Formats: sequence, C-alpha cells, structure tokens
Amino acid sequence: MEASDHPTEPIEIAIVGGGIIGLVLTVGLLRVGVKVKVYEQAKGFREIGAGIAFTANAIRCMNLIDPAVPVALRSSGSVATSNGGEQDPNDYLRWIDGYDRHREDDPYRQQLFFKLDAGYRGFEGCRRDQFLEALVKVIPPGVVELKKRLATVEDRGNDKKLLLTFRDGTAAEADAVIGCDGVKSRVRQILLGEDDPASRPRYTHCVAYRTLIPMDKAIEALGTYKAMNQHNHVGPNANLLHYPVANNAMINAVAFVRDPNDWPDDTQTVAQGTLGDVKAAFEGWCPPVRDLVDRFPETMSKWGIFDLWEYPVPRYNSGRLCLAGDAAHATSPHHGAGACMGIEDALCLTTLMQEVVAECREDPESKDRALRAAFSTYDAVRRTRSQWLVNSSRRVCDLHQQLEWGDAAKLVKAQTCFEEIGDRSLKIWRFDYETMLKETLQGYKQKRASSNGAMKDMTVY
Amino acid sequence: MEASDHPTEPIEIAIVGGGIIGLVLTVGLLRVGVKVKVYEQAKGFREIGAGIAFTANAIRCMNLIDPAVPVALRSSGSVATSNGGEQDPNDYLRWIDGYDRHREDDPYRQQLFFKLDAGYRGFEGCRRDQFLEALVKVIPPGVVELKKRLATVEDRGNDKKLLLTFRDGTAAEADAVIGCDGVKSRVRQILLGEDDPASRPRYTHCVAYRTLIPMDKAIEALGTYKAMNQHNHVGPNANLLHYPVANNAMINAVAFVRDPNDWPDDTQTVAQGTLGDVKAAFEGWCPPVRDLVDRFPETMSKWGIFDLWEYPVPRYNSGRLCLAGDAAHATSPHHGAGACMGIEDALCLTTLMQEVVAECREDPESKDRALRAAFSTYDAVRRTRSQWLVNSSRRVCDLHQQLEWGDAAKLVKAQTCFEEIGDRSLKIWRFDYETMLKETLQGYKQKRASSNGAMKDMTVY
Repeated sequence: MEASDHPTEPIEIAIVGGGIIGLVLTVGLLRVGVKVKVYEQAKGFREIGAGIAFTANAIRCMNLIDPAVPVALRSSGSVATSNGGEQDPNDYLRWIDGYDRHREDDPYRQQLFFKLDAGYRGFEGCRRDQFLEALVKVIPPGVVELKKRLATVEDRGNDKKLLLTFRDGTAAEADAVIGCDGVKSRVRQILLGEDDPASRPRYTHCVAYRTLIPMDKAIEALGTYKAMNQHNHVGPNANLLHYPVANNAMINAVAFVRDPNDWPDDTQTVAQGTLGDVKAAFEGWCPPVRDLVDRFPETMSKWGIFDLWEYPVPRYNSGRLCLAGDAAHATSPHHGAGACMGIEDALCLTTLMQEVVAECREDPESKDRALRAAFSTYDAVRRTRSQWLVNSSRRVCDLHQQLEWGDAAKLVKAQTCFEEIGDRSLKIWRFDYETMLKETLQGYKQKRASSNGAMKDMTVY
Repeated sequence: MEASDHPTEPIEIAIVGGGIIGLVLTVGLLRVGVKVKVYEQAKGFREIGAGIAFTANAIRCMNLIDPAVPVALRSSGSVATSNGGEQDPNDYLRWIDGYDRHREDDPYRQQLFFKLDAGYRGFEGCRRDQFLEALVKVIPPGVVELKKRLATVEDRGNDKKLLLTFRDGTAAEADAVIGCDGVKSRVRQILLGEDDPASRPRYTHCVAYRTLIPMDKAIEALGTYKAMNQHNHVGPNANLLHYPVANNAMINAVAFVRDPNDWPDDTQTVAQGTLGDVKAAFEGWCPPVRDLVDRFPETMSKWGIFDLWEYPVPRYNSGRLCLAGDAAHATSPHHGAGACMGIEDALCLTTLMQEVVAECREDPESKDRALRAAFSTYDAVRRTRSQWLVNSSRRVCDLHQQLEWGDAAKLVKAQTCFEEIGDRSLKIWRFDYETMLKETLQGYKQKRASSNGAMKDMTVY
C-alpha cells in the first residue's frame, strides 16, 4: 500500500496581508493543494494607490500561478496603458525633454529622447481595488479573515505548528507563515527583530504628487498626441509622468520631485500637497509641462516614497517564515514594476509549495524540513533580482532627475543615460521565468538531498 | 562592358594614430581593398601601458576584421589572464572583501563577494608593445609613417580629396580620415572645434598606481590561490586589482584610488607616486591587502585617469572624417574593455568600407557620398554602446569604491551591487556583433537609398 493512499493532513500556510501579492499567492497555493488562511488587518481590501499596471511578463507569470488570476485581472477592467496608435498595437514608454528649450521661436517644441517598445499589451493597468475584488471572488469563503492585525509569531519547535497571535487577542496556527504585508511589514519585523535597520523602510527623498486631469484639459496643455499616450518628461530634480486612464477620459499625472529634507512622520507617508509646491518644482520647465501643472488641483495627495534600498533585508526566510512582495523588497515606483516583482515571488513560492505538497504526501514526517528547504530555496532564487530592482528604481530616478537636464552644455551627456535605462527596463520586462522555475526545482531538490536546507557559507579564503 | 572591368582608383583612407586600434583597422581596410596610410606622431610604436587584455568576444571580432589579427595577438605571447584552475579551464573575475573583518580571530580571512565566469580563455592579455610589433609585421612596408603629427585636415569640397597637414610642414591627401589617435585625439579637436568641451578629456578623480610584484612576494601577502588568480579587492574610496603575468612569475597590481583634488597638469597624465600615498589609501584595510601594499616599491607610476564621460562626443563623424577607439570614447579602465570597444569599432568600419569599395567599383562617382553615408552609419551603430561603456566604467568604479564597504551596517546594501556589475560585464563580454553587422549593412543601404547619408532629425512634437 502506497503512503499516498492515506489521506494526509494538508500543509497549512498563513499569509499575512490581503493585498495583491497575498491574494494572488493564495490562489496559487490553493491550486496546488495547500490549506491557506489570509490575515488582513484592514476592515476591507486595501485601496492604497488608485491604479496599478502589470507587464506582459508578469501576466504570463500570473497565468502559471493559476489561469484564474489573469482572468480576474481582465474582468476587473484592465486596459493596455499606452497604445502605440491605430497603426501599431504595441505599448511604448517615452522619455521626453521636459526642461530644455533650444528654439525660442517654438517654445512648445519638446524633443523625444528615447522610446522603448514594450510589445503588444506591454502594460495592463487596472484599478487596484477592482482587481482585489475580482481576486476575492476566486477564493473560497472563509479563507480570508479581515481585521486581523498580526502581533507575534512563535516557533514552538519542530513538528509543532507556528503560533500566530493578533492584536485583538486571538490566535491561530500554521505550518508556515508568508509575510505579504507590504512596505511596513510586521512579519519582516518579527523575522529580523525590531531593531534591525531593515525592519522599517527609509525615505527615498523623493515625493510623488498624483492627480487625475480630464482629457480635454490635458490636450489643451500637451496637444492630442502627448495627452493620449504615456510620456515621461525629464528634467533637473523632478520628472513628470502621465498616461491616459478611464478609457481616455482622463490622464493620470504623477509629478516626482526630489526632496532634500527629511520626511516629518514615518507613520504617515501620505500628506497634503499644494499646487504651489508642484509649481515651484517645475519652475523654468518648458511651457507644455508648466501648462499641465497649471491644471493640477489646488491641493492633492503628496506621497512620501519609502523603500528598502538603504537597508536591504539580509535574508527573505528564517525557518518556516518568509517574506514576499514589498515586505521583502519594497521599492520606489520608478520602474513601475514593484508589484510585478511580487508576482514573480508568488510564482516561485507556488512552484515550491507544489513540491512540498507532493513530498509530504509520500512522507508526512518531512513537512517541517521540506518547508524550511522551500523557503531557503526561495531566498536563494529571488533575493538578488528583487533587491536589484530596488537599486535600479533609485538609479533610474537619479537619471530621470539629473541636474544635467538643466544645463545645455551637459545635454549630450545627460542623454547617454538611455542605453542604461533601456537595459534596466528590458531586464524587468523580459524576465526568463522558465529558467527561474528550473533553478527553483533544482535548488529545492539539492537542498532536500543534502542537509535539510542548511545554507552553505560563502566562500572565504 | 561592365564598369567593374575598368581598373578604378582605390579608396584612399588616412588613419591618424598607430596604436592598437589604428593598426588593427589598417589590417582590416587593407583586406577589403582600401589604400591605407597610417600617420603616427611617435618615433616608434607607442608603449603606453605595460599590458592589455582582450575579451574572447573582441578576439572573435578581430578574426572577422582579418584572421591575421588574432594570429598576431597570439604570436606576441598573449595568455589567458586568469585561469580557473587545473580542473576548470575557464577564466573568472572575482570581487573580494578588501576592507571588512568580521572575525577578529582570523584577520587574514577575506570573503569572496562575487565571481563571474568569463568562459574559456575569457580574457587574453599581452604586452602592448609586442602586439603592436606583431601587427606591424602583417602590414606592408610604406603604409605606416612615423613622426607625423597631424596639424589640420582641410575639406576642399566634394570630389576633391581631403588635405592633411602635419607639424613638420608636410602634407598628404586622402578620401577620408579616421582618427584613431587616442584620448588626446587631434582629429577629435578638428572634427568638433578646439573650443568644444569634448575636445579634451576630463579627470575622473581617480588615479591608478601600477606595479609588478614577484610571485613569491605576492604569495607571502595573499597566499597562493589569491596570488595566482585575478582578484579585485573592494573597499571605501579605493580598490586593488591584481592578476598573474609573465607566466606566473609576477603579479600586475593596480591600486585605484579616489582623488578629491584636481589633476595638476592636463598635458602630463602620469606622475610619480610614492609608497606613502598608496599606504595612506589602504590604511585600515584587511591585513592581506596591507601586506601586499607593503611590497609595492618606494616610488611607482601614478596615472591620472581621464575620460570623455563628462562631455561625450556629440557625433563620431563629420563629412568624411570620423573617430574610432579612445579618440571617440576614451573611457576609464574599470571594465578592462576600452580597447575591446575600439576593436568593435574597427569591425564596423571594415565592414562599411567593404561596401564602399564594392559600390565604387560599380560607380566611381559615388565615392564621396558613399564615404559620408558609411561614417554616418558608423556613428549611428557605434555611438550609443561605446558611450554606454564610458558611463558604465565610471559606475562600476563608484560601486567598487562605495563608502558602504567600510561600514558593517551597510555591508548587505553594498553587496547588492554585484547583480548590476555582472549585467554590465556580460553586456560587454556577450556582445552580439552579428546583429551589429546586420544593422551596419542595413543602415548603410538605407542611407544610400535615401538622401545621400543625411541624418534625420530626432522626433519633436
């Protein structure tokens, strides 16, 4: 009689955080036969950030996690964010001179510095809350628990379940805990200790002012072509990004502005910004940019951008705990790919848990060691790339906001940045997830064959 | 009767500068039927820089220029610079902790941060003067003229040859001039005008102290493995690179040190450095590094590193003039790939001149327009990549010399740089020259088919 003929206890995983990565991972783990509970601290699904976009590559990863995920994305009204035009179905990113005017006779002239082809439906954007709602519909009732704010996770020894306690005094058990609880992750604090410098994100000294502008007003400032297509206006100490949303009824405009000061309050990363602040940042820029800024509202949200660049997480796992998405590698938004990186994490973890489930069906005793090996493999496969993104996003912000854009004598130099920006973008968009999955399976097998998932020390002499 | 039955006048090209790129290009142009003259200002072949290394990729490019070029390289005693060991024939680059000591009980311990596989014979190093001598043997007598320092190039109108004048009062004619005259290129000054900021290179605020150390002394300091293999010790404000040369009889050691000051004299980029200077730069570093520095001589060469990063050349061509190698894109040496980039230039130009020669055989009247189109194509194909290298070399110097290497709390952050360093290295080592050659031929055909090589303006709105 085979061991697999016995019905074995399922693997139980607690996912902390019911954001996009937490719910997408939930769908994946349920598909491979894991018993999942999601603990979300909010009363409903988080609506931070009006919109979010995914690369075509991330959507292919979603499809491998579970075909229901891209179906949910598209049912929530996702649209390609920036079409090439009627003759060309591809999406493009465009970088455009926001500052310099070479020609006094034509002050509305702007030079296109660089254009990068993201391919057919290269980005698909959606409203964040609508995608979450669509994902919840895929998940059986009872899996997600709201108003559960994690307090502690206690490891009571091998072959015992982890104990989770919540601020409301309740508790729960799980074989493993995955922290998908975002930039201010509690699981990260528990994994590293509260005194670790990576336990809290740091201010990037860049703020984002966001607003929606009706399309007719955007066209007044930018002209039809620029208003109807994604453009990133670069200049000294700031850049202005916009793209059409809501079936071209509006544009979403985001002004990124360097801030030499400290952020006043770590616990509140959104403040009120004024039109005066934004105007000051774009003083001296070219007329179309200033005309667009004139159409911003008198007050708007000002987001302090925080990330884990300065103090990256040394390891994404510890025993049967691990971190995914922003909890592991919170990034600034300059590549527009933070969530895509979390989707890649979710694909890696889903693949690993499928192996763990299969192994435990054969040998239920191996559960604890298999979970540790899986998380250790996940760390080895995912940490380098996802921390690269955090660095790269900072770097492209520096390049977008080079002081040289403001100096005509340095304009040739400033423009040499685009080869690098292109390379960095393609590294994100053309991720070879097939190779990642091979490495994931090989790494897991090696760890299980050798020393129960123990890490080898780095080479020393 | 076909036009090609007439013996037509050959294309005559003047190459200014008899360094490695100038001579390699000469071999290529001679092969495709161009009449070449090389004008070199020195009395003999320049010996600046004791050694030079080429990537396997650059050697494949040499082979496409003319199989005689890699034969010359190997006849000059080139050797793989850093073998993996007896069990592994591949070359590796290794980045190693030069500063931090985590373990007081073992102060000679150094952590290997990153190792990058350059493949079989990934780098081949040679003595620069020996490679030049071997190249000269491939070139027929009378092609190279020494002691010819270029003064001016005059364009006397279409269908007339360019007039070159030299400081010694002599003159020469050519259909086109290619400046391979290095970092202080005179052709660049003529092409851009002497007042253009790109007409002279700028100080990178990094100096290099170079010396050779006998292998037994190197082993005393580093141990056998490190002494016998390439290692790059990274730390705050400096890095120390060494690799074996002369059949493992010595190591070549290069200490790169950040210099906040200005360089005293632009015309002299080599000064005398003292052991005291080098010791001061590596004070507080780990014992093996300090032990090696103790074995540096009392005085040695100190090279001020200059490049074209701050003011890149806006265009590599103007009419029938163009720039190649360091004249076009002088770079700091931190990728060890400056000459490789010039070899790629030489392959692109050889391919273009083969087209020009074929076209002029059919229609001798087209010579002038064909040459302009060829140089314009060359600029379009080569400028972005080669200026990227200049930027990238500065960037990796910054990463090698991060202040964070000196701060234990920032060591995790500092180490996240290696994904980027790896990507940048692979972009150099795995250059797709087949695609470059396709783009070169397509670009040239398009220019010849359209408007005689005129450039299109960049998109403006």
